[in-house]
This record gives sequence, structure tokens and C-alpha cells, in this order.
Amino acid sequence: MPRFRMTVEYDGSPYVGWQRQTNGASVQGALENAVLSLTGETVSIRGAGRTDSGVHAKGQVTHVDLSRDWIPHKLRNALNAHLALAGERVAVLDVQAVAESFDARFSAIRRHYLYRIITRPARLALEAERAWWVSKPLDHEVMHAAAQRLVGHHDFTTFRSVHCQAKSPMRTLDRLDVSRTGDLIEIRATAQSFLHNQIRSFAGTLKLAGEGKMTPDEVQSALEARARTACGPVAPPQGLFFMRVDYPGDEQG
Amino acid sequence: MPRFRMTVEYDGSPYVGWQRQTNGASVQGALENAVLSLTGETVSIRGAGRTDSGVHAKGQVTHVDLSRDWIPHKLRNALNAHLALAGERVAVLDVQAVAESFDARFSAIRRHYLYRIITRPARLALEAERAWWVSKPLDHEVMHAAAQRLVGHHDFTTFRSVHCQAKSPMRTLDRLDVSRTGDLIEIRATAQSFLHNQIRSFAGTLKLAGEGKMTPDEVQSALEARARTACGPVAPPQGLFFMRVDYPGDEQG
Repeated sequence: MPRFRMTVEYDGSPYVGWQRQTNGASVQGALENAVLSLTGETVSIRGAGRTDSGVHAKGQVTHVDLSRDWIPHKLRNALNAHLALAGERVAVLDVQAVAESFDARFSAIRRHYLYRIITRPARLALEAERAWWVSKPLDHEVMHAAAQRLVGHHDFTTFRSVHCQAKSPMRTLDRLDVSRTGDLIEIRATAQSFLHNQIRSFAGTLKLAGEGKMTPDEVQSALEARARTACGPVAPPQGLFFMRVDYPGDEQG
Repeated sequence: MPRFRMTVEYDGSPYVGWQRQTNGASVQGALENAVLSLTGETVSIRGAGRTDSGVHAKGQVTHVDLSRDWIPHKLRNALNAHLALAGERVAVLDVQAVAESFDARFSAIRRHYLYRIITRPARLALEAERAWWVSKPLDHEVMHAAAQRLVGHHDFTTFRSVHCQAKSPMRTLDRLDVSRTGDLIEIRATAQSFLHNQIRSFAGTLKLAGEGKMTPDEVQSALEARARTACGPVAPPQGLFFMRVDYPGDEQG
């Protein structure tokens, strides 16, 4: 069966998360329903990352096997038409025909996430579901310095949800950069793979560093403690965006 | 009574518009309700511009008279707390005590708007309520050239809603710039005041220019026709943002 790689954008606000669940609408379900109404085929769509409820994506990557050999851009347009009809907050940005060896999850060599914080006295209106509101300024330079203590190959037990199903807490964090533009603080994280809640755990801990409540040394000690209790409060989901996935052979890969 | 100038941000999606109406929730009503629950006072809040349903604001300016002499930042924080409790998509960004001669509407010397268009094959998910989706590329340079034919002092009958209540169709358009960053096209408009639907009428007509369906000469002819029928289809509200208002004595004014 022909396999298609699909790049997907979504507003995570109305969904229980990427993964199909019994307790509400999921992004995976929205896409599988669009395929069903378009082709009559009941498929299982695999994603490169399982985002939580409220977490957004600008570049989630998925794959699906279909019985027919679609022209990629026609498949994209037809799926978008069905997603629009169903009132979903999901868009298929790009479709490519790929080899059967391509697996959105297991072929991925790097995943890129962005966490957005807006620091200002007033609550958020336009960005309420697109950023974490922090009412006081944060020192982004201290946050960046603290973040560098987390880069590299480590046991990330401290920054891992107790519900994380990964076999090992060992991960290699390639990049964790903190920058500021006006009242917007952006945390950019890159790794081959992440643990459950790892980036939101980073964001919550780095916020403490930005407030002066943890030094970079203390952030490093928290990492070395390998204890969930050493982590700052987990940052809320609406600030997190799954931006891009790299695969072998991609131009950017 | 002490008068306060308030700068307000809102997500226009859930509202019938700025102005209080009998057919649904308004931004003005949200603010007046917040004042009522905070102070017990029934007030009428005046805005610098009456935005339509679905139109957003990053810097609407309002004024209100209160019986008590509030410390401005405490009034801001208290109103935001009441807006949050009520689940409104409105935020008070800034409060200043002003002279009784200040009128949010009549003292304004310049109003600044932004209209956002995203051009890409895929429907919008994250930006669905924050931009106009156009599925094919637009030539922003032709749009900008056409826009320059509209700048200046003109009879803007062509670009005015039939429901517009202004006495005169004469306005002076100070700026109408079109720029592009990736797939985002931004139209920035500045004038002392605008007619009803004027910027959305510009955006709809400039889109035709960007598609090659109208030349800059034809846009100028449409202006000179002084006829509503010469206008392109009015662009949808969700792309429009009320950005800022200038007043005499402001640093930026």
C-alpha cells in the first residue's frame, strides 16, 4: 500500500491531545475521520510526537497507508476540505509519497519544540491559548545560562512526568536556548526524542531561574538529583508548540 | 469625577463587536460589567473605534469616569481579575488618570490598523481566527503600488459600508503599506479616522490587485468612481487588528 508522510498543524486547545482517547476529541481522531470520510478506509495514523491536551503543532509529522496512489497535493487539499467540513482545528500542510520504510515516529532524527512565555502585568486576551502568562519580568539571560546546564546526555528523571512510559530516562538534549523579544520569551528545544512533559518541566524550572528563585547551579543540582520532586512546577500546555521533525535525507536533516 | 484612559486588548471572535448590542456579548459590555462588579457603578465606556464582530484589538483606547480616585495600576489589575473571573477574552493593558477634556474618540489624532493575510495552500488551524486565508500567492508589490493610489485626501464612498453612519465620505488616509514576510502579508493603515468597513474594503480590493485581477490604475479608477459597486469583496473580519491610537501630547503622537 502506498505510504504518505503528512505534515500537520493544529490548535491543541479543543483536543484531549494528539492521541485517540475515549474521553474526547483528539487530533489523531480528526485526521483518521477525515481519511475515512474521504476514502472510506479505516486507518491508524502514526505521529512523530504525542502532544498533550492544549499543546499545539506547527509541524507534527505523521504517516498513513492508503489503498490508492494519490497525487500528494490532491490528497492534501481533499483532507483539508474534509477537516474544514468537520469544523476541526487541524490543517494538513504538506503530503509526500514515501517509502514503506518511513515511520513518522521511529525514523525521526530530531524533534524541535518551542515554548512561549509572555511577561506583562495584564492577563492575555489574544494570546491566551498560545502562551504562558507570567505577570512579572523574567531574566532571560539567567534562564539561558541555567538551560545550558541541561544540554547534553543526561538522566532526565527530574524533568519527566511520573506517567512517562519511556523505558529509559536517558536522553540527549541538543539545544535549549532562551531568547527574548519585548515581552515574549521563547525557549527552543531540540533532541532526537523527549520524555513525557520534559519541555514543560524545563520551562517551569527555567521560569524559577528567571525569577531569581533558582540559580543555574541549583538547576544543575536539580538535574543531578534525578528526582521528580526537584523539578519546578510544570508549565501549562498552551505555551508549547511542536515545530518540526527532521528525518534522514531531508534538506534540513 | 476622575477620568481614566484605558488601553484594551481583545480577541474579537466571541463578541458581536466593540459596541453594546441586544443580540450578544460585546467588548464594551464586558468592560462595563467588570467595572460594575468591581465598583458597583453603572458606567458607559467610550472607545476610540467601533470594531465589528470578529475584529481584534491590541490597542483599543477607551475612557471611563469613576467616582473614586483609583491608583491606575491597581484599577488595571482589579479590572483584569474581574474580566478573568467572567471568562472574557478582554485584557486591560494600561490605565492612566487623564483630564476630563480627554475623550477616547474625539481626542484621537491618528488610528492605526493592521490587516493580516496568510497565503498558503493549506487552510489555517492556529491562525484561523487571526488572519484571512488566501490559498494562492499574492503579489505584495503590486498590492503596495495599488495601495499608494488610495493614500491622501479623498472621497472614499467606494470603500465605505452602505451602513456607514459618518456624515461625510471624505477622509485623509496617511498610510497604506503592504509588506510580506514568508506567507504572511501585512497591510498597515493609518488615518485620523476611518469609515465603516474601510480597511476591510481596501484589503478585499488589494487582494484582487495581488491576484492580478485589478491593476493599480483600476484600483485608482475604483476610488474615483465613488461607487460601492466598484469595490472588491469586503475582506473577512478576523484578519483585522486595531493596533494603536495616538493623542496629542503622547510620546508617539
